[in-house]
Amino acid sequence: MAAAPLLDQLVEALRCLPGVGPKSAQRMALHVLERDRPGALRLAGVLQEAAQRIGHCRVCRTLTEAEVCPICADPGRDGRVICVVETPADVLAIEQATGFRGRYHVLLGQLSPLDGIGPEELGLDRLEARLAQEGVGELILATGTTVEGEVTAHYIGEMARERGVRTTRIAHGVPLGGGLEYVDRGTLSHAFEGRREY
Amino acid sequence: MAAAPLLDQLVEALRCLPGVGPKSAQRMALHVLERDRPGALRLAGVLQEAAQRIGHCRVCRTLTEAEVCPICADPGRDGRVICVVETPADVLAIEQATGFRGRYHVLLGQLSPLDGIGPEELGLDRLEARLAQEGVGELILATGTTVEGEVTAHYIGEMARERGVRTTRIAHGVPLGGGLEYVDRGTLSHAFEGRREY
Repeated sequence: MAAAPLLDQLVEALRCLPGVGPKSAQRMALHVLERDRPGALRLAGVLQEAAQRIGHCRVCRTLTEAEVCPICADPGRDGRVICVVETPADVLAIEQATGFRGRYHVLLGQLSPLDGIGPEELGLDRLEARLAQEGVGELILATGTTVEGEVTAHYIGEMARERGVRTTRIAHGVPLGGGLEYVDRGTLSHAFEGRREY
Repeated sequence: MAAAPLLDQLVEALRCLPGVGPKSAQRMALHVLERDRPGALRLAGVLQEAAQRIGHCRVCRTLTEAEVCPICADPGRDGRVICVVETPADVLAIEQATGFRGRYHVLLGQLSPLDGIGPEELGLDRLEARLAQEGVGELILATGTTVEGEVTAHYIGEMARERGVRTTRIAHGVPLGGGLEYVDRGTLSHAFEGRREY
């Protein structure tokens, strides 16, 4: 379609967004051009600034434009509890869903020696230094339930144990509000084995 | 969530895109920051340029950054056939789906006197001038099948008839590949009335 080269470029550029195919990209482009140019200009500005300025927190490695992220910089957060997660998205999910008031360590990946992702790539040297310095009393392992996530949790658990830090793993089991028939076998078996006194 | 104000701004700004709620906006923001910063910068640049430079074609009113859009400027397109559509999206749809080699008139709306949208707002003065000058032999009415779309088609049809220009309306009926049981009653009744010799 040759009607508007700049429009074509915009449709193409929008496809860098996840879940946006040619049809949605075209719909988005036409929508902002016909109805929301101020929104488009604001998005362009923020997107550019974010892509250029957002880096990783020096302490916990989550995404932030500051040297130290607001959570690590907040004196009201409890430095004695550190929650280990895989991604910045996990931090957001925990912040939005729970009342957790401790701090984080963001791995930005999973242990995978074959892909060259070792302890250093996950910032575990920094985590170890924090465990040594900050008087951490509990390390919560909130990595994923994939094989790699479990291996990573196991490795970090061992590391914490050597330093005498109490380690916990978030509970895995049947999600709330779901009927048992919709739960996969692995989760159900896990939930059975992990049953608790009622 | 206070972790990254710039990240929050980005999530908020992404919501100007149609069909993007808080969850998808967050997913998009994290995706581009973690995996595709070049794509984000490209999108920011194109978005800004498009929002500032794309206007409407002086002849047919579709979206373009040029004074006259490529279709109107293309000497290979047949100026004797003009297809009237409601939106630039309709132009793209027809270009992508059909072999139409004529030109367009984009209404950018539907006739709606109560909302102050009269013939002038739809550029019908310009269309009338084109009908007078260009030796147009056929005007294809491809407005929507809503009441407003039909009213608009009827008005433009009358205008063309007064100038002695042949007017056609795209066929309405049962979509290809669909079983009759899934077609709404209005469409089915329309398809029945409009049946043709087989």
